[in-house]
Amino acid sequence: MNEWVGIAASSGYALGTAYVLPSALYDTSRRGLEAHEILAEVGRFEAKVEQSIKDIELLKSDAVADNKVEQAAIFATHLSLLRDPEFVGEVTQRIQDEASNAEAMLHEVTEELITLFEAMDNEVLKERCSDLRDVSARIGSYLSGEEEKLQTEFPEPVIMIGIDLAPSLTAKLDVSQVTGFAVDVGGKTSHSAIIARSLGIPAVVGLKDISSSIQTGDFIIIDGYRGTVMVNPSSEVIVAYQKLKLDEDARLARYEMYRELPTVTADGISVQLAINIANPKDAMAVKKVGAEGVGLYRTEFLFMDRKEMPSEEEQYYAYKAAVTAIGEHGPVIIRTLDVGGDKEIPYLQQSKESNPFLGYRAIRLCLGSGNADMFKMQLRAILRASVHGNVKIMYPMIATLQELRAANHLLKEAKVELDAMGVSYDDTIEVGIMIEVPAAALIADQLSKEVDFFSIGTNDLVQYTMAADRMNEQVAYLTQPLHPAVLRLIDQVIRAAHTQNKWVGMCGEMAGHPVAIPILIGMGLDEFSMSPAALLPARELISKLNCSEMVELVRDVLQMESADEIETYVKSNVLEFD
Amino acid sequence: MNEWVGIAASSGYALGTAYVLPSALYDTSRRGLEAHEILAEVGRFEAKVEQSIKDIELLKSDAVADNKVEQAAIFATHLSLLRDPEFVGEVTQRIQDEASNAEAMLHEVTEELITLFEAMDNEVLKERCSDLRDVSARIGSYLSGEEEKLQTEFPEPVIMIGIDLAPSLTAKLDVSQVTGFAVDVGGKTSHSAIIARSLGIPAVVGLKDISSSIQTGDFIIIDGYRGTVMVNPSSEVIVAYQKLKLDEDARLARYEMYRELPTVTADGISVQLAINIANPKDAMAVKKVGAEGVGLYRTEFLFMDRKEMPSEEEQYYAYKAAVTAIGEHGPVIIRTLDVGGDKEIPYLQQSKESNPFLGYRAIRLCLGSGNADMFKMQLRAILRASVHGNVKIMYPMIATLQELRAANHLLKEAKVELDAMGVSYDDTIEVGIMIEVPAAALIADQLSKEVDFFSIGTNDLVQYTMAADRMNEQVAYLTQPLHPAVLRLIDQVIRAAHTQNKWVGMCGEMAGHPVAIPILIGMGLDEFSMSPAALLPARELISKLNCSEMVELVRDVLQMESADEIETYVKSNVLEFD
Repeated sequence: MNEWVGIAASSGYALGTAYVLPSALYDTSRRGLEAHEILAEVGRFEAKVEQSIKDIELLKSDAVADNKVEQAAIFATHLSLLRDPEFVGEVTQRIQDEASNAEAMLHEVTEELITLFEAMDNEVLKERCSDLRDVSARIGSYLSGEEEKLQTEFPEPVIMIGIDLAPSLTAKLDVSQVTGFAVDVGGKTSHSAIIARSLGIPAVVGLKDISSSIQTGDFIIIDGYRGTVMVNPSSEVIVAYQKLKLDEDARLARYEMYRELPTVTADGISVQLAINIANPKDAMAVKKVGAEGVGLYRTEFLFMDRKEMPSEEEQYYAYKAAVTAIGEHGPVIIRTLDVGGDKEIPYLQQSKESNPFLGYRAIRLCLGSGNADMFKMQLRAILRASVHGNVKIMYPMIATLQELRAANHLLKEAKVELDAMGVSYDDTIEVGIMIEVPAAALIADQLSKEVDFFSIGTNDLVQYTMAADRMNEQVAYLTQPLHPAVLRLIDQVIRAAHTQNKWVGMCGEMAGHPVAIPILIGMGLDEFSMSPAALLPARELISKLNCSEMVELVRDVLQMESADEIETYVKSNVLEFD
Repeated sequence: MNEWVGIAASSGYALGTAYVLPSALYDTSRRGLEAHEILAEVGRFEAKVEQSIKDIELLKSDAVADNKVEQAAIFATHLSLLRDPEFVGEVTQRIQDEASNAEAMLHEVTEELITLFEAMDNEVLKERCSDLRDVSARIGSYLSGEEEKLQTEFPEPVIMIGIDLAPSLTAKLDVSQVTGFAVDVGGKTSHSAIIARSLGIPAVVGLKDISSSIQTGDFIIIDGYRGTVMVNPSSEVIVAYQKLKLDEDARLARYEMYRELPTVTADGISVQLAINIANPKDAMAVKKVGAEGVGLYRTEFLFMDRKEMPSEEEQYYAYKAAVTAIGEHGPVIIRTLDVGGDKEIPYLQQSKESNPFLGYRAIRLCLGSGNADMFKMQLRAILRASVHGNVKIMYPMIATLQELRAANHLLKEAKVELDAMGVSYDDTIEVGIMIEVPAAALIADQLSKEVDFFSIGTNDLVQYTMAADRMNEQVAYLTQPLHPAVLRLIDQVIRAAHTQNKWVGMCGEMAGHPVAIPILIGMGLDEFSMSPAALLPARELISKLNCSEMVELVRDVLQMESADEIETYVKSNVLEFD
C-alpha cells in the first residue's frame, strides 16, 4: 500500500476504483505554420475563445439560478481571464510571432503564466493558477476536438483523481457515480474543496503529484476526515475502512431517529436548533433535518452577482418564499444586508480598503451616507413578508448603541411608509442584533435593553477578539473559538441578555461544534443555528447532556489557560460516552 | 473677510502675510519641434529625470539619516514614479509622437494621469496624485531652469499657501520663517499634514482651491485647531486671534513650570509620565520635557528602509544610545520588533495579506517559522544594553498565554547564549507585554501572573474592539477610545494586574488625551506614555485631579452609553477649571 497525506477537504469515506482525469486533453506539441496559414490559425483560436466564453456564460447563469454563489464566482473569474489581453492576446501574438499552432502556443503561455504566478508569494495569484489551468484546458480541448472523448458518465462508482477539480468538468459530470475526489492542488478553501463539500462527496486535496502516480483502475480509499488517500491497500486496511464506513452509515441512520424529536437535554432543558440559509431554496432543509427554524437567513446573496440592486418586490418574494417554505417549523431570522469586507457588490461603489474586515460593511454601510433608501427598501420587504409566518429582523456588525438606535429609527420610518400605503405587516416583529464585534459583547448589558434577542456570530467575534483574519493561513493558529477570552465574552453576553429576559442564539460555526455545545448548554444559550448537516448530531449530543453538570463544566473551563486544555477537558469529561 | 474651512492638520495659531507658491514653476505651453530636434529633446528630458532621481535619492538618504521615516517613504514613492515607464516612458513617447517640447508633454501626461487617478474611487491612487504633481513640478522646473527663481528664504515670517506641500520643497525651505501652512489638497494623514506636524507648524489642509484664490501679501490667520483659514479678516478678528495666540503662548510657558516637578495628583498619588520614541535621538526629549522615562521604544524603525537586517552590534549600539541618553531619568521600555501589518520589511519575505492589521505581525512573526534567530538576536542586543541603565523588555500583540511563554522561552535561550559567551546583562530585567488584542485584555488575570507589567496599546485595542480600521476614513466614527466597551476592558486589565501587584502603563494616543487622563487616574493607571508635546499639559492636568474623586467618576462613566456622553461628562465635571 502507499498512503498519501493531503488536506481533508470534505468529510466521509470512499472505497473504490480510481478514474484518473487526463492531465491535458489535447496534443500540445509544436507544429510550424506557413505564412499564409497564420491568420486562419489566429481566427481558429479566437473562435474557440468565443465559444468558451459563451459556454461559461451559460454555466454561470445556471449556477446563479441555482444560487450556487461560489461556483458562479469561479465562472466569473474564468470569464475575466478569457477577456484578459495578457492571456488571450498573448497567445494570438505568440501564434503570429512564432508561426506555430494555437494548441502549442496556448500551452506555452499558460505554463509561463502559471510559473510566474507560482513564483510570487501571493495566495490570490496562486489560486488563480487553477482557474488558468481550467480555462486553458477548455480552449485546448475545443481546439483539438478532444473534449468529446472525456469520460463524464460511468457505469459503476469511481473515485476521481486529477490535478484539480475543474468547475467546468464537475458541471457536466455524472456525480451520482462519483464517490470520492483526490486532487493534486488546493487547500481547505480552494475551489475543489468547495465543490466537493457542496456535492457532499468525500475529498482530499493538496496531494502534490498523486494524479501522475495513480493509474485508472487502482483501488483507492479516501479518508475525508484525516485527509489521507490509500492506493491499493492491503485487505486488512480495506476491511477496517469498510467497517468505518458501515459505522458512519449507521451513525447517519441513528441521527435520523432524532429528526422528529424536540431538542431537550437529559435533565429536561429545551433549546432550539435552527439552520443557517443563504436563499429561499435552502429553507427546504428545515423540514429535511427537523430544524426548529432558520437562525440566520443571509440576504446578501440576493444582492450579489448582479448589475443592479434587487427591487423591493423581488426581495419581498424571496423572503416570503423562505417564510412559507418553513411554515409552522419555527421562525425565520432575516439578517439585513451584510456586504463589504470580502463581499463586493458592483452597484454599491465600495472603495478599495486596506483592511476590509475592519471596514465599511454590514450595518455601517446600510446606515452610511446615501444608503438609507436601500436599507429601508429591504426593511419594508422583510416587514411585508412578516405577515406570512414568524419573521424576525437581525442587524449585523452592531458595535454601538447609537448604531442600533439609528437602524431602529429607519425601521420605524419603513413601518410608517407601509402604514401610509395601507400595507400590512407584523407590528410585533422581533428585532435583534448579531454580537460579533467585541465592543457589542462588552456592552451587552446596555444593548440587551433595546433588542428582543442576540445572535452571537462567532466567526467574526473570534476573528476580532483574537485580532486574526480567519482566512489568513499564517495566523490560523489564533482562530480559536474555544480560547478562554472568547468563552468569557460569550458567557458575559448570555448573562447580560438573560438579566433582561432576552434570549440568545448563536449562528457562527461554533454553534454546531461538538466540543462547544456542552459549554454553550452550560452557559444557557437558547438557540443554536448551524449548517443542516450538523443539526441531527447536535440534537443527539444535547439529548445526552445534563444541563446542571454543564454549568459546573463552564465554571471550570472559564479558568483554563488555553483552547487546547479546554478541548481536552470537554472531550475526556463529557464526550467520552461517544 | 472670507473664512475657509478645511481639515485641521497641525495645531496652533498663525497670523501673518501669505506667500503663495506658484502652481506651476515652468511654462507648459506647446512648442513644435523640427524632426531633427526630437531626439535631443528626449535626451534633455531624460537627463532631467536622471537629475531628479539623483536629487531625490539624496533627499531620501537625508531623511533616513534623520530617522524621518514618513518623509523617506514619500521620497521612495517619488523614486518609483520616476522609474515607472507608464509615466516617464509615456512622456518620451509623447515628445516623439507629437514632435513637441518636453515641458508641455510632461504637463499633459501628468494632468491626464491625475484626472485618471482622481476618477477612480481609490484612496491610494488619489494620494498618489500629490506625489505625481510634486515629481512632475520638479522635472518641469529643472527643464525650464525656473527652480532657482522659487523663493525659499524669507526676510520676514510668512504663511505658505499652495496646492500641496511638496516634500522636495519643504526639504529646502527656510522653515524658521514659515509660521503656517494652508494647502488645497490632503487629509489628516496626507503628506502635507505629516510634514507640518513634524515641523511643529500650524496647518490646515483640504482647502480645495485656496491657492488660486489668495494673493501673496494677503493677511492670513490660520487656526490649526478648528481647521480654518481667514483671509484679510477684520481688525476685531485679528485682535481676537492675537489674544488666542498670546493665551496659547502663556499656556506653553505655564507648562514649562511643570518640567522639573514630579507627577502627582492633588491628593498625593504619584504616577509616571513617559514618552514614546522611535529612535535613540528621540530619547533626548526625555530631559527636554522632564519625562520619567521612555514608556515605548519602537524598535521597528531600526529595521525599516534598508536592504538587510541590522546586526546584533548595530542594534546593541542603538539601544545603548537610548539608554545612556536618558541616564537616571527613568526606565526605557524596549518593545521587540513590531512589523507586519502596515509596516513592510523588504528582507522579511512577508506575504501580501488581505487584512494586514489582522495578520502575521509583531510577536506572531517573531515566533513564526524561521524567525527565532532574528528574534533572539534582538533579545540579546536588548539584554546587553540593559547593563547601561534601567531597561525593560516588552512583547507586542500577545493574544494568548502560549505566545507569552514561547517568547519567554526564547528570552531564556538568549540569556543562556550570553552566559556561554561570558557577556553580562541585567538578569533581573523586567518583562512585560502590550495589551492591544482584546483576547489579551480578557485574560489579563492569567497573563498578569507571568509578566512584570502591562502596557495598554490603545490604538490597536480600540481598532480591534470596535472592529474598525483606524486608518479608514469611512469607519473613523468608530475609532472611539472613550467608548464604554473600551473603558470597561481597560478597567478590567488594570484591576487584574493590580490583583497580582503588577503595574500597568499605557502607550497609545489615549494616554495623553485630557479627557481620558482623569478616567485613567481613577482606574489606577500607573504609567502614561505619550508624545513629548502632550507630557507637560498632562502633568499640569494630573496635578489638579483628586484621585479619590476620579474613582467615583470611573464608576459613573462605565455605565454610560456612548463616548460622546462620557466626553461631555468629563469635560463639564472635571475639566471645567480650565
